[in-house]
Formats: sequence, structure tokens, C-alpha cells
Amino acid sequence: MHKVNASIITIGDELLIGQTIDTNSAFIAQEFNKTGVWVHRRVAVGDVYDDIRKALDDESVLSDIIVITGGLGPTADDITKPLLCEYFGGKMIVNEKVKAHVIHLFEKIFRRPGPMLERNLKQAEVPDVCTVLHNARGTAPGMLFRKNGKLFFSLPGVPHEMKGLIVNEVIPVIQKEFALPAIIHRTVFTAGRGESMIAELLQDFEASLPSHIKLAYLPNYGMVKLRLTSIGDLADAVNKELEPFFIRLQELVKDFMVVNDDKKLEEVVGQILRKHAKTMGTAESCTGGYIAHLITSIAGSSDYYKGSVVSYDNTVKSGVLGVNQSTLSQYGAVSEQTVTEMANGLLKTIGTDFALATSGIMGPGGGTPEKPVGTVWIAVATAVKTETLQLNLRFDRERNIHMTAAAALDFLRKFILANT
Amino acid sequence: MHKVNASIITIGDELLIGQTIDTNSAFIAQEFNKTGVWVHRRVAVGDVYDDIRKALDDESVLSDIIVITGGLGPTADDITKPLLCEYFGGKMIVNEKVKAHVIHLFEKIFRRPGPMLERNLKQAEVPDVCTVLHNARGTAPGMLFRKNGKLFFSLPGVPHEMKGLIVNEVIPVIQKEFALPAIIHRTVFTAGRGESMIAELLQDFEASLPSHIKLAYLPNYGMVKLRLTSIGDLADAVNKELEPFFIRLQELVKDFMVVNDDKKLEEVVGQILRKHAKTMGTAESCTGGYIAHLITSIAGSSDYYKGSVVSYDNTVKSGVLGVNQSTLSQYGAVSEQTVTEMANGLLKTIGTDFALATSGIMGPGGGTPEKPVGTVWIAVATAVKTETLQLNLRFDRERNIHMTAAAALDFLRKFILANT
Repeated sequence: MHKVNASIITIGDELLIGQTIDTNSAFIAQEFNKTGVWVHRRVAVGDVYDDIRKALDDESVLSDIIVITGGLGPTADDITKPLLCEYFGGKMIVNEKVKAHVIHLFEKIFRRPGPMLERNLKQAEVPDVCTVLHNARGTAPGMLFRKNGKLFFSLPGVPHEMKGLIVNEVIPVIQKEFALPAIIHRTVFTAGRGESMIAELLQDFEASLPSHIKLAYLPNYGMVKLRLTSIGDLADAVNKELEPFFIRLQELVKDFMVVNDDKKLEEVVGQILRKHAKTMGTAESCTGGYIAHLITSIAGSSDYYKGSVVSYDNTVKSGVLGVNQSTLSQYGAVSEQTVTEMANGLLKTIGTDFALATSGIMGPGGGTPEKPVGTVWIAVATAVKTETLQLNLRFDRERNIHMTAAAALDFLRKFILANT
Repeated sequence: MHKVNASIITIGDELLIGQTIDTNSAFIAQEFNKTGVWVHRRVAVGDVYDDIRKALDDESVLSDIIVITGGLGPTADDITKPLLCEYFGGKMIVNEKVKAHVIHLFEKIFRRPGPMLERNLKQAEVPDVCTVLHNARGTAPGMLFRKNGKLFFSLPGVPHEMKGLIVNEVIPVIQKEFALPAIIHRTVFTAGRGESMIAELLQDFEASLPSHIKLAYLPNYGMVKLRLTSIGDLADAVNKELEPFFIRLQELVKDFMVVNDDKKLEEVVGQILRKHAKTMGTAESCTGGYIAHLITSIAGSSDYYKGSVVSYDNTVKSGVLGVNQSTLSQYGAVSEQTVTEMANGLLKTIGTDFALATSGIMGPGGGTPEKPVGTVWIAVATAVKTETLQLNLRFDRERNIHMTAAAALDFLRKFILANT
């Protein structure tokens, strides 16, 4: 079976000067991958006529499907639509369905007062050589062009509009027009071992894999995900062939496996709590609410997560969590004693089965010779038991916060498993 | 002056299947831009021999500088180093300085027990045709290759290692070897007006700009940043020419300008509080700690930020923040009355000058006909005054959380300015 290759072209100066991080490409790649389309190249170019044309020329030689995002807004710095019109040899016409949709959005959804702006109505103009793809979430329509047997999808760069178009419009077209292979990924999520150590352990296993099955190492914040990928004509057959290798991989890493799935740590913790009908809360100093944010980003987390006291200031540690003034003055805010009292104070304050507490020095300021930047204390507790963990990190502020959150969630995960 | 163009090549299957979001490219682009190097293309390819070679061939035609990130880890899925060795016609040798550094890191920093692994020592092997760039933060060295007058920098993909190498090694080399132009950006940050409305207002201004000064619209979470960019030989001259346009732009948008700088909203709020020596705290329900996280991501925020009560569960709203049971039962958790009591309760609980409270339904579950998903109430308060704001959002959970945080911080910003 022919492997269906796709390129993603992202248009916009903001990506090239680093003002915006490209999250769209990751979403498109994930969705395509599930469908059996292999994104083999991603290219970002600026709002520059020649650069966009060159990218279209190049990628259409290398790929069957070209997805173009960005450059479709209502302002003058967006040059993509007229360029595409010219590139595919069309002329601009008003699409009445898009026009009615734009007017509907402005009147009913955005509830804008006053007359429509000319530039908003212009969004209803499209090249006559494209098929319009309905953008239910915004005013800029998606467009499908065809040239030399290749499909070109032009989508707005606004993430939630682009996402709707990919799922509801783009993928159904691709599934209709291509015979797609099955691409299967199976992921094992590990914590507590470095990439090199794991690679050493898996050396023979990796050598035993057939050439069409690949093993990838994805290290992130002290965790390593191990991903097996295979490709074939039929999903059932690919899965069946992959299964024994996946089972063997889990056996090899069982001592430090978090879960045999590509899940987030906060999802895994949530699943365990839900299974045992237990609740948790957090008392965060150095992580400043980041752990609460991770947990509450998961839909349905209100079933097991009650809340957090972000005790950034010591007065909150003592006043709300009941940490003793003498503990703070004798041992300091970043100490085993303080996080222990924070965790136990939280259990009393908000009444959960489990508590997680963090206190540390994230940098760049605040370090001392005894407690340098990167010193972190973590405590987990139930009403009858407390355990603590110390970290010595050596990164920048952002990474120290992320590392602490990951280590704390994994420490809590093990503690819950051992105490339910 | 010759414009110095750069391409970034990112290597790794994880970027192409959407498992990882590429944040490295944004960092490199920002740093290069400040230096006067224009990143005009970014390309991502998988761990595929032919694709990497093709990217090197293509980008070296189009750019003066090619930065390659990723593919340098100690595991077998990283094929980049031998490929680069072959591409530039070298052979692998052990670099004694790198070897000593790897051993030092393992013994002193990582404190790994047992003997060094062969694969870790392999990190000290480099092609004999490269200049080694010292990676103070990790074991994989950076490498500089030269071919046909072009510079190729190969860097590890681990973000904090890559960042150190860019700042300390790559940019000094570039500054020595190229006569660089000045690229100047000036950004105005606005809130409360849509992209189309602003574009309408700025139509004549935009038409009046010289062709080498560009105006870009960067919409994000209900805010729009307006960026003027100019390029020239000397920073002073470019700045001087740009200044009157930047002043005129600020005048045109003054009614809805947040700040005349490319800052984050949480930085702007922090600056205002610091200037007036005031403190704040948050009481978050639907934002689940995300606002606390944004504020505490700014170094030094402990000067004005005391903490947050993430009252995800109603028992925390009543028990810790003192929201009346009757308010919760009569009006519900998502109501003007509840957020008002949350904000005022927080002032009493943690004793700050300002309080910000949020409560809403982020989805996908939890909506009712009267209060659909996207219904949000925000309150800001001092000891003597409370103001509220209702939002009706229509996005997915993640975006609803981000939109609420942005709107809440901007609402607080205006409230602080009006009440200090």
C-alpha cells in the first residue's frame, strides 16, 4: 500500500520571530497519525509572497497532502488568500453560504453592534477554484484546492477554528480519497530512570524488533516515555503483531513503569483516585498553583480534587494552613518540617483523603549557600501517615516548576497506591 | 547590507506525530531576531536518513546559517551525529575535553552510582571536522560545521541545554562572523477590541507606513498585540525612524491599550502592584490555580502576590473562604453573589489589598440550560469596593480556562489602576 505523506505549511511572521509557539502542527500531526497519514515534513515561513509560493512548490513535490495554516485573517498583513487564488489559477468570488454564515456569527454570536465591516464581509470571498470547507467556529472559511493529484487544505491559524476544520472537514475528505494504512503507537510511561539506563536495559529487545517496528525514547521532566510504532495495511494485523513486543517491553521496565499508556501523570493520579473513590488537595508554595492547574485541566477532576491553598507567602502558610510560626522561624519555609505541616494542615483545612505539599526555591533569586536555588521539599500525607522527598534541581525557574510538579505527582501516585 | 538568513531544522519523529510541541524554535527565533538574524524558514523532519539529508541540502541553499536541533541523545533512535559526520566528510573521534566533561557531570552532578555506560561515553565522540561547542548543562556537545561559506550548528533538543548553547556559544560565533543589521520590533498590547475593528481604525496609519516598516496583528485570548517591525544598518537610526510611527500607533489605540511593550498581562499587573506597593491574592474555582501559576511564573512575584485559595469544591468555598451556604444554594457556585463572597472572603482569609475571584463552567460537562458551558463570573475587590464581570465563552475547556484567566487579569488591572 502506498504510504500517504503530508506536509504542514505554517504561515506567519509571528512564528519566525518566536512571538508565538506553534501548537497547531502538533494537533494536526496527532489527528493525521491516528487516521494513517504520515506527516513527514513541517515547514514554517513568514508572510512573504515568494517564500509561501516556494513552500507550496516544494511540498507539493514531496507530499500527497499539503495543509496550510494561518494567513487568513481580516487584516492587511494576511496575504495568503489572494496568493492561493493566483497559485491555483482562480478568481475571487463571493460565496453566499459563507457570507450568510459570517453575518449570522456577527449578529447572533459575537453580538456586535453597528454595521458589518467591509473587511469582515471580505471573508466570504474565496477563489472560484476551491471547495469551501465550513468553519463552524469562525468567519474565515477553510478551502480545498487540487493540483496534479495533490490535495491542498488552507485553514485559519486560530487554534480552535483550525481544530474543528481538521476533524469535521479535512479528515473525512482524506478518508474518502485515499486508501490509508494503519499507523499504531503503543506507549509505556516510566519514571525514575534515565534515558541511557533504559536504553542499556532494552538493548537486546531493541535489536530483536522487526525493521518496520520502531522504538523511540521520549524523555520529559525526569520521566521517559517509550513508544513502539508500527505500520501496515490492516489495524488488526498490525496490533496483533505489535502486542507481544509491547507486553515484553512492559515486563522489561515493570519496576519503574507508571502506566502502559500515553497518558499524562495527572490523568493517571486521577484514575487511581476515582477507582478507589478517594479525594485529594494540594498545598503549594513553590509550584504556585501549577499542580492545581494540571489536575483541574482534566475534565471531571472535580470528582476527586477539592482544591489547593497556594501559600506563596508565609502568612498564608501559618494563617490558612496552620504551619507553626516556630517551625517557619527554626527550619525555614523550605524544609521537611514545613512541608510536613503544610500537608497535614491542608488535610484539616479542606478535609481530603490525600494531601500533597511543595516548598522550594525556584530561582533565579532566593538561594543561599545552605539552600541553593533548586532546593525543594515535597510531602504527601493521609490522616495517619506522611512521607517526604527532597529534590535538588539545577534548571531555570520555569523548568524547576515543571520538574517539581512532575516529581510531586509521581511521588503522590506511589503513595496513594501504597496506602489504599 | 546583506540580510543574514537562518533556517531551523528540527529532527525527531515525536514532533511529526504531535507527541511534542516545538518550543525550541520559538526560543531560537527570538534570540536570533534580537541579534539581527532573520529566521525565514523552520523545517521539521523525522528520524529518517534521507529526509534529514534533504533538509540539509535544501536549507543550505536558502540560508546563511542552519541550526539543527534534536537527534543527539544517547539512544539508538538518534541517527543525527553519524549522519552529520558523513555529510560533512569527517570521521568520528573522541574529544577529550567533552569526555572529561561527561565524566564530571556523571560523578559530581548526576551522582550516578556504578560505572559509566558505554553509551554515555559515546557522547564524547564527535566528527573530526566540527568545532565542539561546550554544553555546560548536559552531556551532548554542540557542534559547528562549515560548508560552502555556510554555518551549520547542531544542538541537542533538550530545551535548557539548547538554550545555554544558543546564548553562550552560537550567537557569539555569529556576531563575530557576520555584519548584522538591526531588526527592531515595537509592540503595543491592546485588550477589548477585535482584530477587524482595530484594522479598520488603523487603515490610514497602515497605508502611511514606509514599505520597510511592517505592521502585524497578533490576536490571542481576546487581546491583540500590534507589532511594528523595521530593519536597517544601525539600531539607532532604525529606532529613530520607527519612534514617531510607534507614538502615533499608541495614540490611535490609547482607549484600549494595556501597555506599550511586548509584556505578559501578569507582568503588567505585577509592575503596577509593585509601583504602588500593594499586594494581591486569588480565589479560583473554574481557573483551578491557572491564574496563580501565571502570576508566580514571574520571578519576584512573591513581592506582591501572597497566594490563592483554589476552591474547586464548594466545601472549600464555604469552609476556607467563608462563602455562605445560603448563597451557594440560592444562586449556585457560578453566580455574581458567590464570586463576590469569594473575593471578599479571600481578603479576610489572607489579608491582601486586592482580591480576584473566578467561578464558571469550563466544559465539556456541567452546563445547564440556564448556565451553559462557558458561563463565567469574575469579581475583583478591595476592602471597600467590589466589581464583577460576566463572560459567555464558547470554546473548549483549555481555551475557556485561558480566556478566563486573561479576562480576569485585565479586569483586575483596570480595577487596580482605578483604585490606587
